[in-house]
Amino acid sequence: MKKLRDLQLIIEDAIAKLEIPEHPIELYEPVKYILSLGGKRMRPALLLMACDLFGGDVEAALSPALAIEVFHNFTLVHDDIMDNAPLRRGKATVHERWGQNAGILSGDVMLVLAYQLMMKVEDGLLRTILDVFSQTAVGVCEGQQLDMDFEKRHTVGIDEYLNMIRLKTSVLLGGALKIGALIGGANLADAELLYSFGEHLGIAFQLQDDILDVYGDPDKFGKQVGGDIMSNKKTYLLIKALELANWAQASELNDWINSKDFDGEQKVNAVTELYNQLNVRQYAEHEMETHAEKAFKALDQISLPAEQKQYLRYFADGLLVREN
Amino acid sequence: MKKLRDLQLIIEDAIAKLEIPEHPIELYEPVKYILSLGGKRMRPALLLMACDLFGGDVEAALSPALAIEVFHNFTLVHDDIMDNAPLRRGKATVHERWGQNAGILSGDVMLVLAYQLMMKVEDGLLRTILDVFSQTAVGVCEGQQLDMDFEKRHTVGIDEYLNMIRLKTSVLLGGALKIGALIGGANLADAELLYSFGEHLGIAFQLQDDILDVYGDPDKFGKQVGGDIMSNKKTYLLIKALELANWAQASELNDWINSKDFDGEQKVNAVTELYNQLNVRQYAEHEMETHAEKAFKALDQISLPAEQKQYLRYFADGLLVREN
Repeated sequence: MKKLRDLQLIIEDAIAKLEIPEHPIELYEPVKYILSLGGKRMRPALLLMACDLFGGDVEAALSPALAIEVFHNFTLVHDDIMDNAPLRRGKATVHERWGQNAGILSGDVMLVLAYQLMMKVEDGLLRTILDVFSQTAVGVCEGQQLDMDFEKRHTVGIDEYLNMIRLKTSVLLGGALKIGALIGGANLADAELLYSFGEHLGIAFQLQDDILDVYGDPDKFGKQVGGDIMSNKKTYLLIKALELANWAQASELNDWINSKDFDGEQKVNAVTELYNQLNVRQYAEHEMETHAEKAFKALDQISLPAEQKQYLRYFADGLLVREN
Repeated sequence: MKKLRDLQLIIEDAIAKLEIPEHPIELYEPVKYILSLGGKRMRPALLLMACDLFGGDVEAALSPALAIEVFHNFTLVHDDIMDNAPLRRGKATVHERWGQNAGILSGDVMLVLAYQLMMKVEDGLLRTILDVFSQTAVGVCEGQQLDMDFEKRHTVGIDEYLNMIRLKTSVLLGGALKIGALIGGANLADAELLYSFGEHLGIAFQLQDDILDVYGDPDKFGKQVGGDIMSNKKTYLLIKALELANWAQASELNDWINSKDFDGEQKVNAVTELYNQLNVRQYAEHEMETHAEKAFKALDQISLPAEQKQYLRYFADGLLVREN
């Protein structure tokens, strides 16, 4: 089994060699720029890992893996416009540097480039793989729309939230794994089990992210603790807290949410205290556990010897017990 | 040979029956809205016409024809954001009605939907047709980028301009015709000749549009005469005029271009007078004629009996001698 680090290097190398046209400069410079900003290349690496898992040739899966990465970066470029984000991986976002129109249009062309790269598979797999990819892409768009809708709404249900993070993040992990599996020679049943593994792993991972925002060690988490609280982001913790709160707790929580002028540390401390009173961390951990179990159950059901699946299991374990 | 009007009705009916998901509402309402605004459905109708030309079953080409129309509408939604346009076909644009983010995201999902519709062809044609479609899509993005670039530049060459309108408009006509031909059973050589027909016809048509903006009969043209002059749009006429003008003429033209506060009628009259002095209409008509001839020559070369191609020839004739 090829290790994640090796696969990430293969991806990194292939991205550097990717032939992006030169002209029009304003269209393709942003494409090269966003792809050069790095990141963990987790999605394409998972695609290669899935191919390798079934004994497939990783080289044959390289273009589709790049397709997933180009697609992911297309969503970043457009999401950053929608979120008005000035920075991405510590550098200026595309729209910040080249203007909004260049961001829209270079994102568009990246989506087409992603399809072109995804088509570099053998004829027998072309339709199946493009179907998976298109369904994935539609899911990601729907997830982003739900995320924006939720920001404007007062109340969001836990189920709605879980569905949103499934679409916005997990579907792409699942899609990448399924495509890799198919290229690697998996049958459809196994490929779908691997999809399910990715889907649940993605949800568990996102829930962990929600928890770490509040309870993570700032030195190890790499983000400012309480960032979600300060921006009133509707995370699992906040949604659950609003669901469980009694009148007094709800009113205190809403006061903090509606407050325009506040001391950041004070707000983070007060909201965290309410989360503690309501035990929302435990609820979130339980939900995360449930999805992790579903992920591992799907992995177990794949018709391969257990030792062959061990790397993916350990990898997922590692992902979910990230030091906090 | 099926007539344009019949084909337009087939398209209109199929669009009305197109199954667009209901949720998330904010994502799919704009898709339904823009597709319901009408328009001539020229591109999908041409795709069906090309299929019919080679004796193919128009029904088998219906989904790809819808794909072309959905793709075209995706470009309209994103272009309207980039151009800050409040109106499209007399109605509010998507971003005007639902906000910019909805415009970006519903455009994105339409591009994916277009691929899904385009995939509804037989396996033997899938790769070829998707290749044509992707190349077309990339061309359209490049054309839009060049168009935006040119707006910011002082001088643009005639060749650059012709290449821009080729990419922005003609490539999609050519692509639609080529895809229709392939579905209709044309060999690759004939399909490429039909692409060339569409490409040159599109350029000729756009040049005619540039001419009609200045010299058209306002009652029949359907737009305000001189609109391009008032907005300093870099049309063939303006580019050629700037190329041919002597020092005094260039300086007068630039004064009008740079003038912020002007009487519209006066500007249109003065610039038209300069165009007349420089004979730019004749140059434009000659260029248009050249492309029309190339279009007809490509049509002639297609290995079908002349009478079978007559309808397409008459249709193109009609398009290019639009009453002015």
